[in-house]
Amino acid sequence: MHASKRQLHLNLFIMGNGHHEAAWRMEGCRPRDVTKADYYAGLLRTAEQGKLDSLFLADSYALPPTIRYKVLQSLEPFTLLSALAMGTSRIGLIGTASTTYSHPYHVARQFASLDFISEGRAAWNIVTSTNDATAYNFAGERLPDHSERYLRAEEFVDVVRRLWDSWEDEAILADQDQGIYADPERIHAILHSGEHFSVRGPLNLPRPPQGQPVRVQAGASETGKEFAAKLAEVVFTAQNSMADGQLFYADVKARLAKYGRSPEELKILPGFCAIIGDTEAEAKEREVELHRHIQLDYGLHRLSNLFQTDMSAFPLDEPVPVEFLSRQAEVNGHRGRYALYVELARREKLTVRELIRQTASSRGHYSMAGTPVQIADEMEKWWREGAADGFNVMPPYLPAGLEQFVGKVVPELQNRGVFRGEYEGTTLREHYGLLRPANRYGKAGLTVSG
Amino acid sequence: MHASKRQLHLNLFIMGNGHHEAAWRMEGCRPRDVTKADYYAGLLRTAEQGKLDSLFLADSYALPPTIRYKVLQSLEPFTLLSALAMGTSRIGLIGTASTTYSHPYHVARQFASLDFISEGRAAWNIVTSTNDATAYNFAGERLPDHSERYLRAEEFVDVVRRLWDSWEDEAILADQDQGIYADPERIHAILHSGEHFSVRGPLNLPRPPQGQPVRVQAGASETGKEFAAKLAEVVFTAQNSMADGQLFYADVKARLAKYGRSPEELKILPGFCAIIGDTEAEAKEREVELHRHIQLDYGLHRLSNLFQTDMSAFPLDEPVPVEFLSRQAEVNGHRGRYALYVELARREKLTVRELIRQTASSRGHYSMAGTPVQIADEMEKWWREGAADGFNVMPPYLPAGLEQFVGKVVPELQNRGVFRGEYEGTTLREHYGLLRPANRYGKAGLTVSG
Repeated sequence: MHASKRQLHLNLFIMGNGHHEAAWRMEGCRPRDVTKADYYAGLLRTAEQGKLDSLFLADSYALPPTIRYKVLQSLEPFTLLSALAMGTSRIGLIGTASTTYSHPYHVARQFASLDFISEGRAAWNIVTSTNDATAYNFAGERLPDHSERYLRAEEFVDVVRRLWDSWEDEAILADQDQGIYADPERIHAILHSGEHFSVRGPLNLPRPPQGQPVRVQAGASETGKEFAAKLAEVVFTAQNSMADGQLFYADVKARLAKYGRSPEELKILPGFCAIIGDTEAEAKEREVELHRHIQLDYGLHRLSNLFQTDMSAFPLDEPVPVEFLSRQAEVNGHRGRYALYVELARREKLTVRELIRQTASSRGHYSMAGTPVQIADEMEKWWREGAADGFNVMPPYLPAGLEQFVGKVVPELQNRGVFRGEYEGTTLREHYGLLRPANRYGKAGLTVSG
Repeated sequence: MHASKRQLHLNLFIMGNGHHEAAWRMEGCRPRDVTKADYYAGLLRTAEQGKLDSLFLADSYALPPTIRYKVLQSLEPFTLLSALAMGTSRIGLIGTASTTYSHPYHVARQFASLDFISEGRAAWNIVTSTNDATAYNFAGERLPDHSERYLRAEEFVDVVRRLWDSWEDEAILADQDQGIYADPERIHAILHSGEHFSVRGPLNLPRPPQGQPVRVQAGASETGKEFAAKLAEVVFTAQNSMADGQLFYADVKARLAKYGRSPEELKILPGFCAIIGDTEAEAKEREVELHRHIQLDYGLHRLSNLFQTDMSAFPLDEPVPVEFLSRQAEVNGHRGRYALYVELARREKLTVRELIRQTASSRGHYSMAGTPVQIADEMEKWWREGAADGFNVMPPYLPAGLEQFVGKVVPELQNRGVFRGEYEGTTLREHYGLLRPANRYGKAGLTVSG
């Protein structure tokens, strides 16, 4: 794996009719498609034609209070990704599951099953739930606090990984003559008894094809970054600029050594929302068209929810109250995104209305309107200059925004030799150049893949 | 719906390489296939060619201690059924989820998502977990007792159904011009606060295509039958003989009136394991071949687990200790199956060895070896004489046992006019002649389907 040259990685992040919050109102976007499997299957075929590493579905366990204004983000991830595995053969499938309101036995098992169904293409985006609406769907009480959620998450991940290892790779003998299906000596109870969970094991599925599905994470707080350095293999992050991206990249990569990990063992993928035109003017026109559909009420809801403050109390055309918001920095929630928005508003002296507009495309992720060459230039620059190992590609509107990306930006990156022209492996670990983990219970050493 | 004549229903129950516990050792069975999606996809295509109503996957959340002797029963149901939805267009998909160690928000959402993915073909087999091995994977303590589990199950089902109803059928407007995706007035919090769960809702998915996925159940105890009469739409049951089947059928159907339900609102499907030969002699030879592969150690484990008694303490070739076992009838577990085995042993004066053999095909479900005509005769008889609305078809070995059933028994039933020659509807409710439920939160009346 280390013999082949460094390549850029591209993950497709799909949400509703696209990442721009008004995308669903555009001509060519079909809001009723977001509950149809065929819609996603079509997108995924396009992404696989573009040789993208993976698809990512975000998730939450509560209905947003803004459902009047914005299309649903998708179907449930385990079911949808399993369906999508059947029409594809290479692209990775990254699902989200929360450690706050799920149980490790179910999560370990559903990802293991997805890994079997997709023959080695499953990954788990590890999240902690961050809003009280979710808490009230599960617990009848408010969310546990931020640090408590991360302690639970660490224990959860540890249990899941041990369950994935609970069968050694060679546990199945399938010896029809002797009548021995599996060797019980190679299947291990995990006997976990911790602060949050008590799980005896073993899992009731064999070790999945990748040994362990890939671990993805997107925490941006101090605790989140430390969690990533310790446990994640792919990190999604929202960065406003390449400079911010470089700081984050250096920060997280520097934390790895403490856990005995090398920089290659964790791939950092900032979000990238590209509004693509054959000319710059065409791209800018598309951006204006998207912005024209923005609904202020939705924007105010979105900001109010992030800041946990009623933003309609502030005049729309006066500067964002950054000092007031900074004083609330201890609020229990999306700390990373919270700080990022405050910093953006402070730096660019934005009014509330302008902050709504600037974050409508991609909720704080980097966004640009330009030609395929300009976009490839920007991506290559971030990748070469220590801001990214690749990108979390966030088409602003679907399916056209993805078709433009795959049809025009991907060939540009391929021509430059920075992105694959063909899949070299079959598993998600191979696409990202990540080792297949050794089994803690077995005797085998590391198996190198990809 | 009531205009069309009564038809027999056929559900395909798939488990590992077939229901006979030694099937995986047969030539033509491939034990390594049970973790491959393509294996199941092939079986399901065959079943859909046979116009079967549905596929059923059983499930449990613990590895059987007998994994040495018997192949895994399948992958995880939500993920596997979603994958299977993509290669099929008519056959229903029945998944199992336990109310003891799952949460209603996840279960409601995953079945709703499966119903969208399959365009109206999802059903939930409602179970309570019945062994301590499962408890130790979730709770670090033994199982709650039988009646407590059923109380929890009732509340669980109620919450799930209310979540499915939480969006009215017409809640999505998708009005691109006005920017209104959904009408919040038609989306309802369920505000559930009960003994076991506290769930605010609404669900974060619209009402599924079937309104509510179909409810399936298989309880056989008094509590289980009452639960079925109140809440189930399809019941799977294990019956040793047509006479027993008639008693069960009459018993459960008679309980419906108390809940304001008519007999047609609940379909009863006894398990039926058919060993098929072109001649009776050929069928009997196949049965002998299957029995030849039985492993006594596995059979003793299986009986010991069911009876919660070490059965290896009793001589193999002496009668089953039915008096001893009867005295343990209060044991907390599979009450229905427990009683059925004791009754079978008592009636036929079986030794331990004979009980193992007699239950190896289908774990107490009805089993027969015969020609396609003999099997169709038996099915038609049960169906005409008040023992069944159809059958839970349990091929003893796969894929050949299913191919024989679809290729030979199904045409026989079709020729007799008791089984469909073509699907008439597209949803699982339509196949079973079950009404699409009205939404408790909406104003619409019953919508008749199928």
